[in-house]
Amino acid sequence: MDLGSLQLSAETADLKRSVMRDLLSLAVDPEIISLAGGLPASELLPVKALRRSFESVLARDARRSLQYSPPFGPLQSWIAQWMTGRGVSCDPEQVFITNGGQQGLAILSRLFLARGQPAVIEAITFTGIQQVTAGRGASVRTIPTNLIDGADMQAFEAALAEEPRPALAVLIPDFHNPLGVSLSSEKRALAAQLAARYQVPLIEDDPYSALRFAGEFCPPIKAHDQAGFVFYVGSFSKMVAPAMRLGWIVASPALLPQITVLRESLDIESSALIQRVIADFLESGSLEPHLQQLNQANHQRCLALLEALERHLGDVATWTQPEGGLFVWVTLMPEIDAWRLFPRAVEAKVAYIPGSAFAVNGGHHNTMRLNFSNLAPEKIQLGIRRLAAVVRQAV
Amino acid sequence: MDLGSLQLSAETADLKRSVMRDLLSLAVDPEIISLAGGLPASELLPVKALRRSFESVLARDARRSLQYSPPFGPLQSWIAQWMTGRGVSCDPEQVFITNGGQQGLAILSRLFLARGQPAVIEAITFTGIQQVTAGRGASVRTIPTNLIDGADMQAFEAALAEEPRPALAVLIPDFHNPLGVSLSSEKRALAAQLAARYQVPLIEDDPYSALRFAGEFCPPIKAHDQAGFVFYVGSFSKMVAPAMRLGWIVASPALLPQITVLRESLDIESSALIQRVIADFLESGSLEPHLQQLNQANHQRCLALLEALERHLGDVATWTQPEGGLFVWVTLMPEIDAWRLFPRAVEAKVAYIPGSAFAVNGGHHNTMRLNFSNLAPEKIQLGIRRLAAVVRQAV
Repeated sequence: MDLGSLQLSAETADLKRSVMRDLLSLAVDPEIISLAGGLPASELLPVKALRRSFESVLARDARRSLQYSPPFGPLQSWIAQWMTGRGVSCDPEQVFITNGGQQGLAILSRLFLARGQPAVIEAITFTGIQQVTAGRGASVRTIPTNLIDGADMQAFEAALAEEPRPALAVLIPDFHNPLGVSLSSEKRALAAQLAARYQVPLIEDDPYSALRFAGEFCPPIKAHDQAGFVFYVGSFSKMVAPAMRLGWIVASPALLPQITVLRESLDIESSALIQRVIADFLESGSLEPHLQQLNQANHQRCLALLEALERHLGDVATWTQPEGGLFVWVTLMPEIDAWRLFPRAVEAKVAYIPGSAFAVNGGHHNTMRLNFSNLAPEKIQLGIRRLAAVVRQAV
Repeated sequence: MDLGSLQLSAETADLKRSVMRDLLSLAVDPEIISLAGGLPASELLPVKALRRSFESVLARDARRSLQYSPPFGPLQSWIAQWMTGRGVSCDPEQVFITNGGQQGLAILSRLFLARGQPAVIEAITFTGIQQVTAGRGASVRTIPTNLIDGADMQAFEAALAEEPRPALAVLIPDFHNPLGVSLSSEKRALAAQLAARYQVPLIEDDPYSALRFAGEFCPPIKAHDQAGFVFYVGSFSKMVAPAMRLGWIVASPALLPQITVLRESLDIESSALIQRVIADFLESGSLEPHLQQLNQANHQRCLALLEALERHLGDVATWTQPEGGLFVWVTLMPEIDAWRLFPRAVEAKVAYIPGSAFAVNGGHHNTMRLNFSNLAPEKIQLGIRRLAAVVRQAV
């Protein structure tokens, strides 16, 4: 069969994906302490409140909930209010419901970016962002990310200014995957200005901002957007539950018809039932106590990870200091290759993701992404002790 | 804002979609009898059984159901058995779970069809098929569909044989949307042979075959596929409930890794919860009694529609004789324009979809698609009486 027409950069996406899938599958082996995943803690999922919402919606409105349906207005309204409270004043009509953050990326990248056109992304970034840009045949311009205050804005401006002008840019504002760093407030304001000045649509990919456990709330890039060039992508996957598969886009009203047509061509619409259940969960006030509990646990876990890194790897590694989210980025001595180390780590019953899996242009062999959200503090400490032993052997 | 890079055939898709949205919104006005929709009957949705399945899954397995998760094996197994029972012997590993039939079309079209490449589709077909071919910039070759036994196989072979060879073909085997016709058994066997002979991947879009209420079961095109060039797309939207947003692809095992990567780039995965709930619904034996009840009701409704057409429009129209599904296709006298007639029909409190909305190359102004699944027989009769009055006025 002729697969020459396959529109995937199979060499990169496939390999990284399949390796990561193997890594994630390790999490099932109870012997192995996996710092490789990107999952919220299963034991902290808001099971009781979601069960109540499913029961309540199915009891009072089952037929409409199980049928085809337009976007659920009360959910759009709740999100518009939530966004307004976070500095992005918007109307319910500007809120487009998606099946999670990745679908937001998939829709917006297809709206703006044709094959071969340039896109600006961070040189180290979430694989899902790579898939909707490089993976779709875009010519990618990468910018470095500062591990203290996020994407380099001089490089960002240079990449936007370069001819031909890019068709799209993507930034992660809070608790970057995989870097754990957040974009400073000044950089957010500047990013919005630059997108408008160079007339480049900028996707703000924000699945994590509700997962802040330290530092001050910082309004999204979209809060600084006067000209309508910033497209905000949100998600309930990490802040409520992944299997709800629900998220949203905040876009300029003028683009909503095109976004709707594009989304229909992908999978018609989001489930009426799931939209109503999430709306019930949100309206019944279940989100805030859930986030409090979740972020408190994440904070403890993150602290356990940072302390263990200090104790066991303090002299041979540096790492980022996240104020929320799920990940810490570790940089080892240049002679360490985290891919080559990996089989030995698995033998020692600890797993991580080699940082180079997120490096758009390769390199960064001496880095790793560590997840802290899905393990108890004791497990994290033990995992880092094991990891340190493997690293020290290799030094 | 520069929207020049917008990859949509906005002129066709947008217009048709927005008109159809308006048409569908009429269904909300209780005064208007809408034969325009494509919805299964709300009052026949398996509400009780699905509620039971939600309760049971959330009671016994809530945490895993709400988390990220690999495809749910028991659901893949059930579907593989179901497909095998319908003549398509396949393993669970060949079953790829999607968010409904449209996502199957979206994934497979992206797997095979690059911008500008030729695709073969029926000249009158489901708008979702138009969106993933013409709507994505394919150069479309259309073939006529016989209203008795389905797509014209001579035209199909000619379109496959033409150089450059098409990158993709799409056919609807059972109870065609919008035509209501089914492809004969001989034509199915031939379609599979032709796909293999000309090495063109053929998507078999089958959301309706479980909705048969008359005639003999006819195995899918995929049942005749020796060479692995047929890709079957199924859906639970019409046979269980639209808001479950679940469907499947049956593909050659060799392509599953690429399909998985592509799907991850679109929206990661299907909900673990919804997969488990559907599996519970299926394993508990709820499907068969539901389909019996549904198809019996659909049969009565279809007969009511056909009788009303005969009584009120017998001398000025012809129509298809569906053995299942949701739709009847009506052809009026050539001087009738169903678009121009539409405002008068709405005034007379009846709605339909003008057939030209489904015509890839335009034309077919004297046709309409009528839905029978979502109205009681008395309503259907009254609707056709109103419609006939409007048509007769125009003659």
